[in-house]
Amino acid sequence: MVITSSNSQLTEQELEDMFNTALQVAKEAGNVIRDAFYKEKKVDTKMSAADLVTETDQAIEKMVESMIVKKYPTHRFIGEESTKDHEKHKLTDDPTWIIDPIDGTTNFVNHIPEVCFSLGIMVNKKTVIGVVYAPIKEELFTARLGKGSFLNGRKLQASKITDLKKAVILFEGGASRDAKILEDKMANTHSLYTHARGMRSYGSGALSICNVAAGRGQGFFEYGLHIWDFTAGGLIATEAGAVVLDPSGGELNPLHRRVLCACTQEVAHSLSQLLVHIDMGWD
Amino acid sequence: MVITSSNSQLTEQELEDMFNTALQVAKEAGNVIRDAFYKEKKVDTKMSAADLVTETDQAIEKMVESMIVKKYPTHRFIGEESTKDHEKHKLTDDPTWIIDPIDGTTNFVNHIPEVCFSLGIMVNKKTVIGVVYAPIKEELFTARLGKGSFLNGRKLQASKITDLKKAVILFEGGASRDAKILEDKMANTHSLYTHARGMRSYGSGALSICNVAAGRGQGFFEYGLHIWDFTAGGLIATEAGAVVLDPSGGELNPLHRRVLCACTQEVAHSLSQLLVHIDMGWD
Repeated sequence: MVITSSNSQLTEQELEDMFNTALQVAKEAGNVIRDAFYKEKKVDTKMSAADLVTETDQAIEKMVESMIVKKYPTHRFIGEESTKDHEKHKLTDDPTWIIDPIDGTTNFVNHIPEVCFSLGIMVNKKTVIGVVYAPIKEELFTARLGKGSFLNGRKLQASKITDLKKAVILFEGGASRDAKILEDKMANTHSLYTHARGMRSYGSGALSICNVAAGRGQGFFEYGLHIWDFTAGGLIATEAGAVVLDPSGGELNPLHRRVLCACTQEVAHSLSQLLVHIDMGWD
Repeated sequence: MVITSSNSQLTEQELEDMFNTALQVAKEAGNVIRDAFYKEKKVDTKMSAADLVTETDQAIEKMVESMIVKKYPTHRFIGEESTKDHEKHKLTDDPTWIIDPIDGTTNFVNHIPEVCFSLGIMVNKKTVIGVVYAPIKEELFTARLGKGSFLNGRKLQASKITDLKKAVILFEGGASRDAKILEDKMANTHSLYTHARGMRSYGSGALSICNVAAGRGQGFFEYGLHIWDFTAGGLIATEAGAVVLDPSGGELNPLHRRVLCACTQEVAHSLSQLLVHIDMGWD
């Protein structure tokens, strides 16, 4: 993890243009995902048999990077498939496009519709634009800092539930198959089956955060995800009135690989108190 | 549980008429679910804080029963909300309409779109018609014995994956908060996170079986569900080439409160070997 500084100023018009570019990029990425969805995929495994990457992930990331570089040659870019290049993991004050070409790659490979393209833009290390597009479900989530968040143009408002007993919590098992990590994750699952109304798991962290923003459930947490999984969704959630924190209850660090999102401070607090806080490293 | 016998014969035309009535009933039920979905609900708890029933569940079941009784006065009826009346739990050879007015009531209460109406028809204790309608997602699953199954008119084919390591498994935690049952369920979840590619949980058993039929994942299991949760979905799955069994690997008994559905015999066998088989009683 490297955080450097060089404060950037952007006009409203520049932000508006970046938002429109983000929508265009998401649409193009969505078209590629949709075309590939029902075809057989060539799959590689990354860390474990559960951590997959496809040709489509890689093709989308290249396409998106070239669209952005062409229009914004001075902007930075952090993409899931470029993770081998540590240079790209610096988070500076420069405008930075943070991309997950396909969130829910296992769903994508197994023909499960919860797949999305996720694009967040940070300026001065603050997320100012978030776009999450699920082309199979035809759901486009968008947000701009201070301007609310939307699903297919409909304004979003997170649930106002404060009591964990009435809350449905979304979670992800994640790709790690390390025995100790899995044990801690199962302890969290067990504990929440006991204390919450129900648990759901969709296989896409980005869509799960967006679901909390849309009032479809009251909380989401994951240990082991990456900056590109929750940057866009995080803004979509906070602009819908939800809270996004480090699972311990402190401020979120976008490079720390864990996140907690809840519809209210009260649900966030209850979750934070109950969870075993797993440290899965930094981006 | 009571199973009695008096072999029934129905013509193709009669079955066709029943199928059309089932579609009409599902459409009406779907309209009621859709209208109520975004409103605040009056909720009662049944067994535990996680086991909910709403006015809408009860209203739909009454409406559906009266539609069916009017057209088929000699047919029998088993509905989730009539469970207090043990008379209705006899499974005979008579044509029997088996209804879940809302599968996924917790989702319904918490504004999560995975809710459906489920209607299976058994004749001579064999399911001949299955209709599962998810009105918020606009997904209509249908099946007739020997005639295939369909999603919005598109023929379904389950996945052909045979290796559990490549399979995504759908499961439900269910409504019971009994400590021993939850412990066994968590053991199953843990074991499958270790051996399968991934786990998903949507909060609707009926829709999860239909998802396996549609090739969206390779298996589903649940302990503690009821005959109305899997009768329609079971036919939709087998007509799509999937297998539906008791989780132990033996023949399914529709009154035994547990089910295993898998895209292939091989995945069914692997699941059956790995799972702790929980006995949650009989309908």
